[in-house]
Amino acid sequence: MDDAAPRLTPRPVAARTLPVPTTVSPQLQQSISASARIAREAPAPAPQTPEQWRAAIAASFELGRQRVEAVRARFPVEIVEGVLGGVPVHEVTPPGLGAKRPALLHFHGGAYIVYGGGSGLTEAILTAHYSKRRVISVDYRMPPDHPFPAAVDDAVAAWSALTETQAPGATGVFGTSAGGGLLLAMALKLKALGRPLPGALAPSTPWTDLAGESDSYRVNAGVDGVLPFYDGLLAAAARLYADGRSLNDPLISPVQGDFAGFPPTLLTTGTRDILLSDTVRVYRRMREAGVETRLEVYEALSHAEFNAAYESPESASAFGDIARWFDRWLAA
Amino acid sequence: MDDAAPRLTPRPVAARTLPVPTTVSPQLQQSISASARIAREAPAPAPQTPEQWRAAIAASFELGRQRVEAVRARFPVEIVEGVLGGVPVHEVTPPGLGAKRPALLHFHGGAYIVYGGGSGLTEAILTAHYSKRRVISVDYRMPPDHPFPAAVDDAVAAWSALTETQAPGATGVFGTSAGGGLLLAMALKLKALGRPLPGALAPSTPWTDLAGESDSYRVNAGVDGVLPFYDGLLAAAARLYADGRSLNDPLISPVQGDFAGFPPTLLTTGTRDILLSDTVRVYRRMREAGVETRLEVYEALSHAEFNAAYESPESASAFGDIARWFDRWLAA
Repeated sequence: MDDAAPRLTPRPVAARTLPVPTTVSPQLQQSISASARIAREAPAPAPQTPEQWRAAIAASFELGRQRVEAVRARFPVEIVEGVLGGVPVHEVTPPGLGAKRPALLHFHGGAYIVYGGGSGLTEAILTAHYSKRRVISVDYRMPPDHPFPAAVDDAVAAWSALTETQAPGATGVFGTSAGGGLLLAMALKLKALGRPLPGALAPSTPWTDLAGESDSYRVNAGVDGVLPFYDGLLAAAARLYADGRSLNDPLISPVQGDFAGFPPTLLTTGTRDILLSDTVRVYRRMREAGVETRLEVYEALSHAEFNAAYESPESASAFGDIARWFDRWLAA
Repeated sequence: MDDAAPRLTPRPVAARTLPVPTTVSPQLQQSISASARIAREAPAPAPQTPEQWRAAIAASFELGRQRVEAVRARFPVEIVEGVLGGVPVHEVTPPGLGAKRPALLHFHGGAYIVYGGGSGLTEAILTAHYSKRRVISVDYRMPPDHPFPAAVDDAVAAWSALTETQAPGATGVFGTSAGGGLLLAMALKLKALGRPLPGALAPSTPWTDLAGESDSYRVNAGVDGVLPFYDGLLAAAARLYADGRSLNDPLISPVQGDFAGFPPTLLTTGTRDILLSDTVRVYRRMREAGVETRLEVYEALSHAEFNAAYESPESASAFGDIARWFDRWLAA
């Protein structure tokens, strides 16, 4: 297509104002409205130096911790810090857990940059609550100090230690955004190593195209209320994470991976999601590879907004679906 | 929410230019580029009088006929006109059809306004080709002369006559856009009448919200290359079709329907589709009603673009999935 590329015509799209839709719950309407009140029309500049990255990371850490405490007040769980395979983890246990079932493994989101150190546990808490399972959330290493492949290495190390005590086929793995991309990368890596794969996966709005080609990066630019722009912070985070490696390496951009032999995989996104294309492209590739997979798309939902709008029925539905997915596919 | 509505903040979105994505097939790239070359930034004015509607309908008829002939040259089928239950139909038969299998029933798209008289057979031809089944396409009555409920009445009449010669559970029904909405309305009507439902349904990018509330009507305004705007023609067509009845009548806007007891239903749409929300909202309601359903979303695909881009692998995949859905779920 290189020959044809110069003849391809881009499409002009006029400015518009998006009303808060009437087609979602009142709780999600409030979330959409709240993000609209602080909407910018263009991306903020990305950090340039390691010091600027560290300052941005520290600010996000505080925001994440506050979110985690708010969610925990609403959905009480026990959180214990630990180490698994040499990697720091947080073990999240819902109340009243009866007979001990195998734990789920979780990777937090945050563009491989932020929400470490326990500040990215929101969906771990929500999944523990709705699934009635223990969740082990992996505090993997991140840039600027630890670029790729540190996160994938930590994921494999934690997985290996966990599956010494519970069967791989009884172990489900979930994560959102970068966490969804990371769990796909981990499974691709396990497959390359010839090792058993997890019993089921639930990557939600996974960041799978760090090369920046997904159409929704442009179509939903400024539309997504949670992560309004790919250009700026995300594009810079992709380069920082890849650390000079090809952005199309399947362990960096799992949309380029071969999913043949993957376990049942549930993918969740929303129509306003800046990673809508990242999600549907992986879904399509999995379907073509014969994977048992399901795509859930929520009306007017932005990137990972089931975390921010955790009081909404849409959030309960999304996490309820993840819980049922694991109940259905994980070996007893 | 009426009290809260004034406090909800709309979201400003800046103008942008969408490049042709690299993430779709070369054939779909050409289709996206071709529509971008004729893109308008605002909706065209809708016809106002019955005479203006008839002129618009006549122009679309010629365009539709040309498309049908082009598709038929590429995918040879036999097309025979007939009458079924008093309703004009076109019977589309693929070559080399062996043992006679039950026919599929088809409703064409066109906003309940256009593509009658055999000018809306594109997806009937494609489905006959990919499914190796006979397709009976219903030429239902339309406004301005025959508003709702004429189309639903014709659908039920054709269905009733067809299912005198083949079992309802062996009969699949498909259609795109208004045709997808109409088949859902027909099934809701059959359910209300206590009659057996079809064995499986495949509404593609169905028009299910004629009240105009779907979020994608705003988010994908100007983004969709096939049907760029809801305001203008579509909003006017909705009012013309409803003829004074409530736009939220479930037989007019099936997204308001109760889908409990519906047969397995395959829904297909794309990330640039102006009816993306119409599709995912019905999918979600079906899931909540316990219907066996599946959602297929194609990267950067506009409304029903699997028809226009009929040489693309995306089109082959979409129609191949519909064929397999009917193979899987229709009683032998």
